[in-house]
Amino acid sequence: MLFIFSLRRYILEINLDRIIEQFNLMSNVGIDSNGGITRLALSQEDKEARDLLVSWMKNVGLSIRVDDVGNIYGRREGSVSDAKPIVLGSHLDSIEDSGQFDGVMGILAALEVVRVLNDYSIKTKRPIEIVNFTNEEGIRFKNLMTGSGVLSQDYDIESVYNEKDAHGKTFLDELKAINYLGKKEHRLLEAKAFVELHIEQGPILDSEKISIGAVEGTLGANWLQVKVVGEESNSGPTPMYVRKDPLISTAKLILEINKLVKEIGERAIITIGDVKVKPGNINTVPGEVTFLVDVRGENEKENNLGVELVIEKLKTIAKEYEVQIEFKTLRSAEPAVFSPEIVDTIFSAADKLGYSVKRMVSGAGHNSSFMNNICPTAMIFVPSVDGKSHNPKELTRWTDIEKGANTLLYTTLNLMT
Amino acid sequence: MLFIFSLRRYILEINLDRIIEQFNLMSNVGIDSNGGITRLALSQEDKEARDLLVSWMKNVGLSIRVDDVGNIYGRREGSVSDAKPIVLGSHLDSIEDSGQFDGVMGILAALEVVRVLNDYSIKTKRPIEIVNFTNEEGIRFKNLMTGSGVLSQDYDIESVYNEKDAHGKTFLDELKAINYLGKKEHRLLEAKAFVELHIEQGPILDSEKISIGAVEGTLGANWLQVKVVGEESNSGPTPMYVRKDPLISTAKLILEINKLVKEIGERAIITIGDVKVKPGNINTVPGEVTFLVDVRGENEKENNLGVELVIEKLKTIAKEYEVQIEFKTLRSAEPAVFSPEIVDTIFSAADKLGYSVKRMVSGAGHNSSFMNNICPTAMIFVPSVDGKSHNPKELTRWTDIEKGANTLLYTTLNLMT
Repeated sequence: MLFIFSLRRYILEINLDRIIEQFNLMSNVGIDSNGGITRLALSQEDKEARDLLVSWMKNVGLSIRVDDVGNIYGRREGSVSDAKPIVLGSHLDSIEDSGQFDGVMGILAALEVVRVLNDYSIKTKRPIEIVNFTNEEGIRFKNLMTGSGVLSQDYDIESVYNEKDAHGKTFLDELKAINYLGKKEHRLLEAKAFVELHIEQGPILDSEKISIGAVEGTLGANWLQVKVVGEESNSGPTPMYVRKDPLISTAKLILEINKLVKEIGERAIITIGDVKVKPGNINTVPGEVTFLVDVRGENEKENNLGVELVIEKLKTIAKEYEVQIEFKTLRSAEPAVFSPEIVDTIFSAADKLGYSVKRMVSGAGHNSSFMNNICPTAMIFVPSVDGKSHNPKELTRWTDIEKGANTLLYTTLNLMT
Repeated sequence: MLFIFSLRRYILEINLDRIIEQFNLMSNVGIDSNGGITRLALSQEDKEARDLLVSWMKNVGLSIRVDDVGNIYGRREGSVSDAKPIVLGSHLDSIEDSGQFDGVMGILAALEVVRVLNDYSIKTKRPIEIVNFTNEEGIRFKNLMTGSGVLSQDYDIESVYNEKDAHGKTFLDELKAINYLGKKEHRLLEAKAFVELHIEQGPILDSEKISIGAVEGTLGANWLQVKVVGEESNSGPTPMYVRKDPLISTAKLILEINKLVKEIGERAIITIGDVKVKPGNINTVPGEVTFLVDVRGENEKENNLGVELVIEKLKTIAKEYEVQIEFKTLRSAEPAVFSPEIVDTIFSAADKLGYSVKRMVSGAGHNSSFMNNICPTAMIFVPSVDGKSHNPKELTRWTDIEKGANTLLYTTLNLMT
């Protein structure tokens, strides 16, 4: 607190124009004709974005290192050289035809924090490290948040290296091809704190007209694939009373599973994202239906409860409708509960700066979910207009980005002690 | 009636062995390694099957002609040369990986009827014509029951000719390529009766242990394509309360539409045969769902009511769930109500022969549906074991085929007056 007031006398604040200038340069990398961004991990576009970042890191005097999974670090030394660093960052990779804000804003805001400190010749006690994590999106190579997941040892580096993209190219070969294979000893092993600024990607802040989210954690995510097997037959000759139609059972399951969220928790979500029908003819009673379920809870209890309730429902409906149901878990990610101290620091910084701010939980996973396993972590959310994200319509207002970056600046300073 | 008793004294009955012999030869045409049949219309397999039929027709003394849609007729003259013929027949084409009985049995039973009459040197008053209709299945070229539909003028021959298969080959070119383009003046224009023996393809006769179905008509079929448009968003960051999920609406629609049959009629059916979800990612709330509805009723009233109720339901759910719903009709086929006289003749023949028989409606459309528009028509159904059809497991017991063919024989004789 003291820090904020004393610094405000020096009018210490971020310069939005510099962020916008870099944003415009970065948005040129991998831009589609419709304004969407395609910067798949370890692609030529990713390399170009990384090269741009490295040049900017050098310009602001950071010392660069790259680790064995391709994470890029830019370090600004502190006055106490062996003090654990404050780490800020996010990712530059994108899904196909994504928006311009996702990931990028966390990197650009962190760079601006360093520039402001440079402007005022402020030497902090602790080092500051800016990090760009490899393959957050998990599109080209399927491990979501690969860079932070390797740091937290949730992923084994050898498995990551051997992972192939749709064209059979391995992660390792592609990492080498873009010249970002670094050294294992360059990995970040510990930190005083990790803080990630990110767009919300959801509608909560925008609809409530709040500028800053102090993110207390991320929902856990359990992904299930469910197969419902009935009896295929010709529609016309097969009277209704003899059918064992797996699509009717699936419809019932979709409705019942959707209702379960109320029993799990206020912020719990359940999504059925795809249904595939076999054989899929207009005049054939289907024989088999497969669907995908994404269940997320705010804490471990909710997370487990969600899966239990879904599985229980599968069994009940299977019995009632006389169909066979098989399921398998495609992914199981624990919820992350972030550092209450850092959440408080973020909330307090935003509040003292006069910004509207609320504590909230992230529905999506982020690098922070894994970073939380190795050091105290929290996130700063800025609003996404209409909650739109992962598409060219993704938008965060510059006024909110300015507030987010200032919140990141004061949070960083307040974590120095 | 008189006919049956007087003929039985001559032990006039079909010879099952001859049917089986031809069945085995025909089953070799287009057979897959798993015992399934693939004889797509106008393919080389279809040509081979047709050539085999023509050789058999010639062997039993029929005079052959082919019309402009490729229907093959084999004619046995009657004692009164200008009397309208009794026409018997079905089709030799199949869907991919189909069964060995579908269509074929109607042709083989008709050929055996002619052989029996030849054996006993019986000259009937009316001519008998056996017909093999082109492209009943509507798989390679999309017009279902093309051959009979052209005769009944439900299809325009020019449109049929220009129809292309998946490889861009036209119906006309393919008809020429297999040498079965005949003359328009060869079309069947009128007949005293058309009788088609066919496997039921459903479970009714088999489950009720009845050998013969006297088919009173076919259900009408309305095919709708329904598109439900909601709002696509990332699953994690989008709380349940702000979603407009078209898949939830679709699940509700599937259940509600399925229930509507009870309001339509006892034999009405509604099938939802396919669902496609966009974008179809595990962690994306879908933006758009498309599904296909097949609605069938026993008569025109039921048929229209079915479509009305489905459309009404679409509107109600659209409003309730705040999604956009669009629909279009892909096909609209009237129910066929067959000739009560011929149905009675079939029922009576089977009954007098001592076979279990029931009046029933066909859920599927057949060439008889169109033939009914040009002459008095009815069908003889024989049981499908477990109702399985359109797959290699399709099976009709030889004892039932024998009964079906005898029923066809006596029906033919009783329709001669």
